[in-house]
Amino acid sequence: MSIDTPLTALLGIRQPILLAPMDVVAGARLVTAVSAAGGLGILGGGYGDRPWLEQETAKLRKSTTPFGIGFITWSMAKQPEVLDVALAAQPRAIMLSFGDPKPFGPRIKQAGARLICQVQDEEMAQDALDAGADVLVAQGTEAGGHGASRTTLDVVPAIVDLAAGRVPVVAAGGIADGRGLAAMLMLGASGVLLGTRFYASQEAEIADEAKRRVCAAKSGETVRGIVFDLSRNNVWPAPFNGRCLVNDHVQRWTGREVELLQNVKKVAADYAEAKARGDFDVAAVIAGEAVGLIHDVPPAAEIVDRITLEAEQILRGRRNSVLNPAQAPAPA
Amino acid sequence: MSIDTPLTALLGIRQPILLAPMDVVAGARLVTAVSAAGGLGILGGGYGDRPWLEQETAKLRKSTTPFGIGFITWSMAKQPEVLDVALAAQPRAIMLSFGDPKPFGPRIKQAGARLICQVQDEEMAQDALDAGADVLVAQGTEAGGHGASRTTLDVVPAIVDLAAGRVPVVAAGGIADGRGLAAMLMLGASGVLLGTRFYASQEAEIADEAKRRVCAAKSGETVRGIVFDLSRNNVWPAPFNGRCLVNDHVQRWTGREVELLQNVKKVAADYAEAKARGDFDVAAVIAGEAVGLIHDVPPAAEIVDRITLEAEQILRGRRNSVLNPAQAPAPA
Ligand SMILES: Cc1cc2nc3c(=O)[nH]c(=O)nc-3n(C[C@H](O)[C@H](O)[C@H](O)COP(=O)(O)O)c2cc1C
Ligand SMILES: Cc1cc2nc3c(=O)[nH]c(=O)nc-3n(C[C@H](O)[C@H](O)[C@H](O)COP(=O)(O)O)c2cc1C
Repeated sequence: MSIDTPLTALLGIRQPILLAPMDVVAGARLVTAVSAAGGLGILGGGYGDRPWLEQETAKLRKSTTPFGIGFITWSMAKQPEVLDVALAAQPRAIMLSFGDPKPFGPRIKQAGARLICQVQDEEMAQDALDAGADVLVAQGTEAGGHGASRTTLDVVPAIVDLAAGRVPVVAAGGIADGRGLAAMLMLGASGVLLGTRFYASQEAEIADEAKRRVCAAKSGETVRGIVFDLSRNNVWPAPFNGRCLVNDHVQRWTGREVELLQNVKKVAADYAEAKARGDFDVAAVIAGEAVGLIHDVPPAAEIVDRITLEAEQILRGRRNSVLNPAQAPAPA
Repeated sequence: MSIDTPLTALLGIRQPILLAPMDVVAGARLVTAVSAAGGLGILGGGYGDRPWLEQETAKLRKSTTPFGIGFITWSMAKQPEVLDVALAAQPRAIMLSFGDPKPFGPRIKQAGARLICQVQDEEMAQDALDAGADVLVAQGTEAGGHGASRTTLDVVPAIVDLAAGRVPVVAAGGIADGRGLAAMLMLGASGVLLGTRFYASQEAEIADEAKRRVCAAKSGETVRGIVFDLSRNNVWPAPFNGRCLVNDHVQRWTGREVELLQNVKKVAADYAEAKARGDFDVAAVIAGEAVGLIHDVPPAAEIVDRITLEAEQILRGRRNSVLNPAQAPAPA
């Protein structure tokens, strides 16, 4: 069984599930696992660390399944040569998030890759379409990591309406099971992009303790703010901020951001040291509201299988039990 | 055609759509219209204004269709005799929101009414179950009016899991079309409760100018905060605050709430005067993120019809086009 949508057709994949390009966490191993299971793995090129990118793309070049590579646009724009490194690996798609994609659209498409743009509102969606985006990812505030304030339930239909069938729309933020996939298909999305769910997978390149904390966290125990960006001297342009698990450090500094800035040298040094030590009472576990739905650390392929199977069962079951066929009119 | 769920069976209604008990806005006229169209109209008893309640329930007593009556629990608790007025009208259900429902559960159920409780997290949901709730409304931050911070996509599956099939769960917050209804059914909800969509209906008891502003507002032009509660001397207990359209008054005072409090006498007087005058640059238009989906002011019955028809079409269409039946296993 497979779930066919305009997204799966366009990208040549079997299941409408994309791996979010989580900076460094989504390395070649996780990408390969998601793609092999029928989704599209997208390498977490993030800020554009060239040696890391060369190392991981070298592994992906041997891949027999399609894959993508993602960048944080405004950061990649400072060192556009990393885009050449990415394109040389012949990815099925390049995903750009946060920043103006226009300067890069033509080069990406000339190289034969699809352009996926992650956006947070209608204006960014229109800019992405103008840049030649083949796929729009509509990201809601539930998402782990960087994002903005509007919710997935608000932003997905808004961008589906704006795209008006011209390009497939993918929903991101707060989705971690088959219910979420089925719900997003109802809203008009052609698939989903998952970060937090794959963070808690065997193949994710992150400490076991961080994965354990994602499994232990309950819904409502994440927060969106600027404390972790301030603490690592990496403040983003408005309207973006970041969502992570609530921990001691976040509790200590939330609402005291100005004071943090005044002491940023010391705080950043302590933060870096804690991160190196793997102390997640201080270092951020970057995760979204979907943590409440996540209780284990399976192989990524199992995640893809579970979600698609559950979505199929829901889509099939709902049709039969909810609609009252006795009074059904003939199909249009 | 009808959409049958455990909710429609329990309440004896034809369509899984509940009118939110919007304080005063949902009067007997709107309640009757929603119920006649197959949903459940719920009277906006709000803070419990006894003369208004007597007047509106007098109209509802003649109703041949089921209806409900809603209260703000912590406010009703100060004048519990209004619950007797409500029960005397023989409502199909009493809906309690915001506050401890336990003291009132037995009386409501002895009177033969169902108890519907609106909740914002798992703890409140558990309290509502302990109070004997027959239906849980899981409300996300997208909602117009009072609410809390977690999103609909987060809170609905969390409360569906907690209820574990014991009682139907209704989704509220950000839903205004058939896509939203279909999506919530996928998340495991048995229906939806709509405020903002019915606010912009012919029968809603609110100024035409307020309805016009809901139609004109784009998604992203509402805000959740305490400015309008402060301005009308009606501050709610944590974790609740209110969502309304962004207007001049909200822009002026957001981020300056302490200063507002210091000047509250003058601000409240000006606010009351502006409200009486129908000046919605100052007075709040109480509405949620669903405003982006709302562009007209139809009769309430047409809203019910449109939403159910669209949901049915989506539920039917998705089944056929998305799942690939060539590879389908035999149904379980
Ligand atoms: C650990 C982590 C790191 C992330 N890093 C990036 C990134 O480098 N680039 C990017 O475009 N998005 C990044 N994101 C956001 C994802 O692209 C996506 O929007 C988000 O994970 C979807 O929401 P979810 O976490 O609820 O699945 C990251 C998310 C997480 C959880
Ligand atoms: C104008 C307005 C007034 C409201 N008043 C009440 C109320 O008195 N009691 C209550 O329980 N909920 C009230 N609500 C919240 C609704 O019960 C419901 O949660 C909300 O409208 C659902 O979200 P939506 O507005 O996106 O449909 C109100 C909502 C609006 C828009």
